[in-house]
Amino acid sequence: MVDLPTGNAVIGQSGGPTAVISQSLVGVIEGLRAGLVEQGKVKHIFGTRHGVRGIAKGHPEELIDLTGISPARLERIARTPSAALGSTRDKPDEAYCAQILEGCRDNDIRYFFYIGGNDSADTCRIISEKALELGYEMRCFHVPKTIDNDLRENDHTPGFPSAARFVTLAHMGDALDNASLGGIKINIIMGRNAGFLTASAALAREMRETDPDPAGRPAPHLIYVPEVPFVMDAFLADVDAVYSKLGRCQIAISEGIRDADGNEIGPQLMGSGEVDAHGNVQLSGSGALGDGLASILKKGLTPAGGKSLRVRADTFGYLQRCWPETSVIDAVEARGVGRHAAGLAAGGDSGASVTIIRTSNAIDNYRSAYGRAELSAVARHARHVPEEFLLGRNNVSPAFYDYCQPLVGDLPEFERL
Amino acid sequence: MVDLPTGNAVIGQSGGPTAVISQSLVGVIEGLRAGLVEQGKVKHIFGTRHGVRGIAKGHPEELIDLTGISPARLERIARTPSAALGSTRDKPDEAYCAQILEGCRDNDIRYFFYIGGNDSADTCRIISEKALELGYEMRCFHVPKTIDNDLRENDHTPGFPSAARFVTLAHMGDALDNASLGGIKINIIMGRNAGFLTASAALAREMRETDPDPAGRPAPHLIYVPEVPFVMDAFLADVDAVYSKLGRCQIAISEGIRDADGNEIGPQLMGSGEVDAHGNVQLSGSGALGDGLASILKKGLTPAGGKSLRVRADTFGYLQRCWPETSVIDAVEARGVGRHAAGLAAGGDSGASVTIIRTSNAIDNYRSAYGRAELSAVARHARHVPEEFLLGRNNVSPAFYDYCQPLVGDLPEFERL
Repeated sequence: MVDLPTGNAVIGQSGGPTAVISQSLVGVIEGLRAGLVEQGKVKHIFGTRHGVRGIAKGHPEELIDLTGISPARLERIARTPSAALGSTRDKPDEAYCAQILEGCRDNDIRYFFYIGGNDSADTCRIISEKALELGYEMRCFHVPKTIDNDLRENDHTPGFPSAARFVTLAHMGDALDNASLGGIKINIIMGRNAGFLTASAALAREMRETDPDPAGRPAPHLIYVPEVPFVMDAFLADVDAVYSKLGRCQIAISEGIRDADGNEIGPQLMGSGEVDAHGNVQLSGSGALGDGLASILKKGLTPAGGKSLRVRADTFGYLQRCWPETSVIDAVEARGVGRHAAGLAAGGDSGASVTIIRTSNAIDNYRSAYGRAELSAVARHARHVPEEFLLGRNNVSPAFYDYCQPLVGDLPEFERL
Repeated sequence: MVDLPTGNAVIGQSGGPTAVISQSLVGVIEGLRAGLVEQGKVKHIFGTRHGVRGIAKGHPEELIDLTGISPARLERIARTPSAALGSTRDKPDEAYCAQILEGCRDNDIRYFFYIGGNDSADTCRIISEKALELGYEMRCFHVPKTIDNDLRENDHTPGFPSAARFVTLAHMGDALDNASLGGIKINIIMGRNAGFLTASAALAREMRETDPDPAGRPAPHLIYVPEVPFVMDAFLADVDAVYSKLGRCQIAISEGIRDADGNEIGPQLMGSGEVDAHGNVQLSGSGALGDGLASILKKGLTPAGGKSLRVRADTFGYLQRCWPETSVIDAVEARGVGRHAAGLAAGGDSGASVTIIRTSNAIDNYRSAYGRAELSAVARHARHVPEEFLLGRNNVSPAFYDYCQPLVGDLPEFERL
């Protein structure tokens, strides 16, 4: 029998929301009810509004009591995209952490669950260490979430499969639109440091296409991720090669593409300097990177006959992370990681981040399981698209198709004339 | 017994594609098979690639023979978004029309079907008149299509319900994202002259909200259509009123908003001057309008405490017209207008544009029928959002909800904490 503290639990959601982040919230609540609440170790389950803001003493947000919420209502909350509790990009410093701990003490919080990405895992780690330092017994757990898919120790992260499904479906429809009217189409996709989401555009091809000639591939003809240095001249040459053969070209580009020196292309074209609490320049919520690249293509490529080139750019933006129709597997796993976190707590664990492990990738028999990692193994560090998933400077490999297809799920089948 | 010419039929698709435009193509084919082909009046059904380009003599595109295509394949083509035959924005002049007529003669085309918006109806009208002038017997039919919903004589147009569904679902998800992190969110929506698609964002509210105070409405709090003059100071005041009360504000804005003098705001902020064959400045495929408005809000509104304002803009772009998951009613009606055009041909009609008439709007008993109008009644003219659908300078009326909800179909139900 493990020795567990008795008190209350709190759950928070942090960072960019996803379409399934509230599945994880509901998973933690269900897991607690079946375990620690049942055992009398948890009296109240609180939700903290807007991440740590709701629990930190002196901050304007509040806690809400989730203990008695009905299973039917929980089910509806789980199916609602985005963070039901609200989110935050606050990155607590020393003083802020002290306020959080004070808030936890005041509310007799003994179990702390934080749903988010690697910045959130780091917040969780700091709070866990701070509590230990102060001799305040509180078990801390990080529940993974990020459409960027960039958490270490995880095969993939909840939120990514749904965002990848959106990006795939968007490219499927958009490729047909591009084929109808011709010209060059740029699609800018979220993912500052990791290109997984951009790479998922390849699934729109409805086949595993690895032709070294981009004009020999179905759309998207070209895929550019942050992991491969983006060289403007090579980009122009790639697009020209496709356009001059096909009269059209669909391009998937990560918002986080960077040059050979590692400098992001976006801010170079945007002239924008808005920086968040984590020191990141704002890339999303602006069409400037796409428009800048479109303008470079219009100037740099001259079509035969001197006709003006039709170049269009769409920046998929926030729809990628909030589109209401999710990947089926994603919804199940996002719920699962929440439940698993509560299970770890009931088993006496602490300082843990829940992980997803793929246990089978057999065709039509994808399976996953949940594990745990130390918070420090997940916190802050970013995972990148591994080399084996990439092919040349503008494509993905067969291994990436194997990896991504089961997560995205069944796709519509299109017919062409 | 009507006296009908014997020969071949041609079908073309023109203008901006929609998610259901190939339903109409298949509808015409099915209608011809059941009628004029069956009666021996039509020998071959041709598709013209990229609108009139495929039929016009001397143009590089071609005709393809659709006569023998299997019903199963037709069904898959119908369910595939965008123009299966390809599309065009070519606006035929006198010489081009002569080439089209020559192509029609060469291929013994006696039935001409053109699927498109009001520019396409006009092309169809000119060709019809030209044929008459030359004494070449050819029956011409326009099949309606446009996400802008701006065709006269129609209750609504195929393509609009699916695009409106996309815009609604996008605002539903995005409103929750905006509520999670706060700040101001601008969504730019297609529709150069008509605000129907922008207005459909109101359906995301999950209720008929007509509160004169925008802060009292669920998101989207503010809706701006081209039919209501856009006054920058009023816009700033509207956004400030919502943001200062709620700490957030979701705004749906048409790409076609214009000032009190009727000048479009987009080009004023964009500095872009690309013009298509119909004399329209490029508005879509660029994030410049949204970014420009975001920048004006950041400069014009100063939040309490001197903190920088979080303003994000998404331009929904081409996904609005090519998203693969369509409105159920839209798919049915897009097929229906195609079949009806073939039916009109079999009945001896010519120079007609198929129309959609709403015959019942009773709750859960929406019904529509198909009619016909003269090509000249539909060609060129644009329809606008009627005054009775608008409320004040930034909202829609109960009558608009009544109008739009049956078209968009069932929506997911969300739960909030």
